[in-house]
Amino acid sequence: MYNQETLKDLVEKALVNLSYDTEAQKLIDPIKYILSIGGKRLRPVLALMTCNLFDDKIDEAVVPAVGIEVFHNFTLVHDDIMDQAPVRRNFPTVHSKWNINQAVLSGDVMAFIANDCFLQTPPRYMSDVFKVFNKAAVEVCIGQQIDLDFEKTAVISEEEYTRMIELKTSVLIAASSKIGAIIGGAEERDTDLMYEFGRNLGLAFQIQDDLLDIYGDVKIFGKIHGGDIISNKKTLLLVKALEAASGEQLTKLHELFSLKEFDPETKVKMVADLYDQLKVRSVTEEIAGNYIKTAFDLLEKVGAVKERKEELNRMVSSLIGRDR
Amino acid sequence: MYNQETLKDLVEKALVNLSYDTEAQKLIDPIKYILSIGGKRLRPVLALMTCNLFDDKIDEAVVPAVGIEVFHNFTLVHDDIMDQAPVRRNFPTVHSKWNINQAVLSGDVMAFIANDCFLQTPPRYMSDVFKVFNKAAVEVCIGQQIDLDFEKTAVISEEEYTRMIELKTSVLIAASSKIGAIIGGAEERDTDLMYEFGRNLGLAFQIQDDLLDIYGDVKIFGKIHGGDIISNKKTLLLVKALEAASGEQLTKLHELFSLKEFDPETKVKMVADLYDQLKVRSVTEEIAGNYIKTAFDLLEKVGAVKERKEELNRMVSSLIGRDR
Repeated sequence: MYNQETLKDLVEKALVNLSYDTEAQKLIDPIKYILSIGGKRLRPVLALMTCNLFDDKIDEAVVPAVGIEVFHNFTLVHDDIMDQAPVRRNFPTVHSKWNINQAVLSGDVMAFIANDCFLQTPPRYMSDVFKVFNKAAVEVCIGQQIDLDFEKTAVISEEEYTRMIELKTSVLIAASSKIGAIIGGAEERDTDLMYEFGRNLGLAFQIQDDLLDIYGDVKIFGKIHGGDIISNKKTLLLVKALEAASGEQLTKLHELFSLKEFDPETKVKMVADLYDQLKVRSVTEEIAGNYIKTAFDLLEKVGAVKERKEELNRMVSSLIGRDR
Repeated sequence: MYNQETLKDLVEKALVNLSYDTEAQKLIDPIKYILSIGGKRLRPVLALMTCNLFDDKIDEAVVPAVGIEVFHNFTLVHDDIMDQAPVRRNFPTVHSKWNINQAVLSGDVMAFIANDCFLQTPPRYMSDVFKVFNKAAVEVCIGQQIDLDFEKTAVISEEEYTRMIELKTSVLIAASSKIGAIIGGAEERDTDLMYEFGRNLGLAFQIQDDLLDIYGDVKIFGKIHGGDIISNKKTLLLVKALEAASGEQLTKLHELFSLKEFDPETKVKMVADLYDQLKVRSVTEEIAGNYIKTAFDLLEKVGAVKERKEELNRMVSSLIGRDR
């Protein structure tokens, strides 16, 4: 059994060892940069862990797992262009460090570097693994589109919010979980369970991210405090606040989220005060908790020995308690 | 045997019949748009034609051929962002009709729609076909990077120019030609020959494009006359002109290509006059002609009956004589 730290090290090494055509170094530099500034490597570690649930050997899962991480970072590079985000993980985003053209093009080639990783999947699993990945990749783009569309919508329902984060975040975590299981030789019933496990984990993970934006430890979380509030992002906290608010509170909320010019700190403080009054933190934490519970229940049903599930349980628990 | 027109119709129909997830219509509209404003469909038609060289039935090659065309249009959408091009095939480019974010995201999803097409290749050929495609996809990105880098270089050699167009344009035409042959059941020797055939055809095709920019019929070609000159693009005409020029002519050329503000018509006329004095048109046509000759020679060597090669020969000939 591999533990989370060992698997993360394994992923880091495999990412560093990725070989690139060096004919156009300028194309590759931003890729090395974005892959080097860290992140939790949640998706590839999860894939290796779900593989390890069914098989002692995980070697065959390493390159496809790296493919998932490369794809994920490709979406970050392009999303940061679309969101005009200056900072990612405490470092300048690719388009701010270089320029938009470079971020578009280096991002593009990452999609094909990811493809290359999936094409290296052992032949007996390649088609299945690639199809699971590619369905998720299309869905991630749809999720990003819905997220962009939300910018022009004043109020969205919890259902709409959930569908957006399901597509933008969960399906890739679900796919990671399923891909690992497939390469581990799991039966279809179990690979489907692992997909659902990952989907629920992904939903909880994104809601946790919404919570950390305002209640997380800034130094550890590595994002501006209240960044989602400053950029008028639709989070579950806002969705629940708009649901709970009426009268003066509702007017105030709408006002705050339609301001064109404002002092960021004041805005964050005022919104946070309203969130406190409306008690949205506990409601939101409960929803995330329910998804985690469902994930645990699904994992319970998977046909693998109990001891093998411990490492996955540990990782899920660490994600709930995370500061970043 | 299928002829070029029938195959183009087949490709057009397959492109129209592509099914999309409709959950985010805004994501899909630009894709339908760019795929509907035409083009020669050179790559998919070539793939179907090379398949038909070895097999009477071409059904299995249709979806992968469409994948190549979707990928090609993805590169057009993103290249137009990078080149800040307002017009493509006489229509507004995607980023001018919508906006840059939409062009980035709708472009991105096209890459995965293309993947989906390759995943539908018959299993016995899928891995080979996908690998040939993906290698070309990475190379196309490298070619675009080199092309962007050329903007900051005053003089490039014919060798550098050729390598750039080989990557940016030829390898995908070569891959199309090889992919068709693979699905047609050709032996490795012949699929390799078809790759080389396509590579040479692609080089000639791009040089022809350089020539048409200034010597083509504007109404038919569908681009601004001298657009390459206006945007200071490195073409083979310019490379050969800089090679041939000395003294006053060379100074004038450098001056014209470093102007920040100018009247487009005057600049095009002055450059065209210099090209005439330096006789670069005939030199350039000769180089394109040599690549075409090599392509014909390679096709000659392919292990297929002579009659079957006629349609391909006809297509190549029509490309040399093309006005657009």
